[in-house]
Amino acid sequence: MKSWEKHIKLFIPGPVEVYPDILKEMSRPVIGHRSSAYQDLHADTVAKLKKILFTQNDAFLSTSSATGVWEACARNCIGEKALACVNGAFSESWYKVALANGKEADKIEVPLGKAIKPEMIDEKLATGEYDSLLFVHNETSTGVANPLYKVAEVMKKYPDVIFMVDAVSSMAGMKIEVDKLGIDVCLASVQKAFAIPPGLAVFTVSKKAYERAEKIKNRGYYFDFFVFKKYAEKNQTPSTPAIPQIYGLNTQLDKMLKEGMENRFERHKQMAEFTRKWALGRGFQLFPEKGYESNTLTSVSNNKGIFIADLIKKLENKGMTISNGYKEMQEKNFRIAHMGDMKIEDIKGLLEAIDEILGG
Amino acid sequence: MKSWEKHIKLFIPGPVEVYPDILKEMSRPVIGHRSSAYQDLHADTVAKLKKILFTQNDAFLSTSSATGVWEACARNCIGEKALACVNGAFSESWYKVALANGKEADKIEVPLGKAIKPEMIDEKLATGEYDSLLFVHNETSTGVANPLYKVAEVMKKYPDVIFMVDAVSSMAGMKIEVDKLGIDVCLASVQKAFAIPPGLAVFTVSKKAYERAEKIKNRGYYFDFFVFKKYAEKNQTPSTPAIPQIYGLNTQLDKMLKEGMENRFERHKQMAEFTRKWALGRGFQLFPEKGYESNTLTSVSNNKGIFIADLIKKLENKGMTISNGYKEMQEKNFRIAHMGDMKIEDIKGLLEAIDEILGG
Repeated sequence: MKSWEKHIKLFIPGPVEVYPDILKEMSRPVIGHRSSAYQDLHADTVAKLKKILFTQNDAFLSTSSATGVWEACARNCIGEKALACVNGAFSESWYKVALANGKEADKIEVPLGKAIKPEMIDEKLATGEYDSLLFVHNETSTGVANPLYKVAEVMKKYPDVIFMVDAVSSMAGMKIEVDKLGIDVCLASVQKAFAIPPGLAVFTVSKKAYERAEKIKNRGYYFDFFVFKKYAEKNQTPSTPAIPQIYGLNTQLDKMLKEGMENRFERHKQMAEFTRKWALGRGFQLFPEKGYESNTLTSVSNNKGIFIADLIKKLENKGMTISNGYKEMQEKNFRIAHMGDMKIEDIKGLLEAIDEILGG
Repeated sequence: MKSWEKHIKLFIPGPVEVYPDILKEMSRPVIGHRSSAYQDLHADTVAKLKKILFTQNDAFLSTSSATGVWEACARNCIGEKALACVNGAFSESWYKVALANGKEADKIEVPLGKAIKPEMIDEKLATGEYDSLLFVHNETSTGVANPLYKVAEVMKKYPDVIFMVDAVSSMAGMKIEVDKLGIDVCLASVQKAFAIPPGLAVFTVSKKAYERAEKIKNRGYYFDFFVFKKYAEKNQTPSTPAIPQIYGLNTQLDKMLKEGMENRFERHKQMAEFTRKWALGRGFQLFPEKGYESNTLTSVSNNKGIFIADLIKKLENKGMTISNGYKEMQEKNFRIAHMGDMKIEDIKGLLEAIDEILGG
């Protein structure tokens, strides 16, 4: 057996465990991407996607990871200068992607584990220097959920600033009402709370974002909003899309709507609360600042000085896995994802296994 | 049953029919993209990919369609001005992608159905105006195989010109010896002669291409060669890749190496010859200029004035499909793909079905 053929149940914050029904759905025979069957699939998928995001804005399917849509944001929406909100590895990366695309950007930076506060953004935007905001809702590297709803309130004061939200590890697991919040671009990839294998990203674009993009030269092609829009008008993608992942997404959206989005968000909250309670009960601290803990993943501080690499190795022998801390935080915290199709029983099973290992 | 759930066997020039073994392979449980299991999968896949491309250059996996790698070529390799060789819709699109990325480019253009000749390229490059060449090996929209090997001879006279080859619908079906030919960037997506569902592209990068890229500012991030290289050094991709498609590619490469590449190229040639003979025998003409017919797809001229849309509809009722002419050529020709896992028996079955329809 090759190393990648061994099934280890994923409790890492992406890619997450994909259930057999979705894997089976993805193994349907391929259809032509210019066929009417594909147009039906596309229209149906996008309509349901807009429903779960509470939006009338255009929604697109991008055959890329979310990193590609970061690039799209930079190329389409940053005119003069962006403000990037950085409190972890992924928000830092988005900032760097903007710079790599020849854009100007400043950052608000807070220590790892801390959240970006609305007043920090307000203070910076009040200078009038920025025409766009890069805001990561749920920083996967630290387990911090930044206060999206409160930030959205502040953003209403700055109608000329394009409000871009990376919801990579929160979309479909935590409520995001795109229109109510006035989010101009909201993006995610499908291997997190959507619980689909990686290879596809989704994003929404507001009228305001198009108006900005219209003024920007050199938007490229692959991630140009107007290219997406032109093809979406006939329920197609500009080039051949990741059809298996779209099959998976379509089915997963049906499952979500059947579960009910409020029930789904509540399930994620309950899994998060259970995990946090477990951690605190075992004498661990939570890595995120109090009140800003994510509902899709829990980052646990290693204040007890356990050997995290060893814990992960032993867990893998039991057929499951979690993540250590991101990069320089490798032994400083560990991360447990509880999102997608996971149920509280799955989390209980994992935590019991961790207890067995740490108790032994 | 939803429209996209009906299985129609694909004889269109991409996406092509994917066989059940590959679909099954793709439905393996997902693994973490930063795990050692993924590193094993990546290393193994890339090593085999390099083998079938006869190259020691770096080979990369891009979670995008090949269109994304067109953008990569433009952003990494066009410095002053590119020469684009246009003889169909896809070569025209690549030229436009270069322009959309703020690059300068001129084109050599020949009528649809004609091939780009080495002397045309030689004449233009001799002006010294160009630092890069965009060359589509197999123009999917017309079924013309441009003379790659002869063009490569000409390119040896211009060592400062970056030689980029779109092998989207030829790679893995027609022989391309990347190193021998001196191809600096050779790209394809996997839903053509690789016979894998769409969602992944592959490309190679030469030392010369890196040297060019090094001098170019604003390469972006998602398609920056050096970002790919940095992660590939640890057998990873920069962001979360399309893991199911990589599972499929890995297995497909095993199948290719087992079949033997020469046998594989010969099988494609035989299917093409059979299809061309069938067309001529039925009184059709071939759309491509004589001597430049592709071995992966055949474009048949509609000199008999059949109703192509009706033929396709009737074929679909029999559970299979072909393509009409591309865009403005809709009723002027039809295209039959014979690539990937297809065998001559499959082609015979298709052509018999067409005979039945046209004869009736």
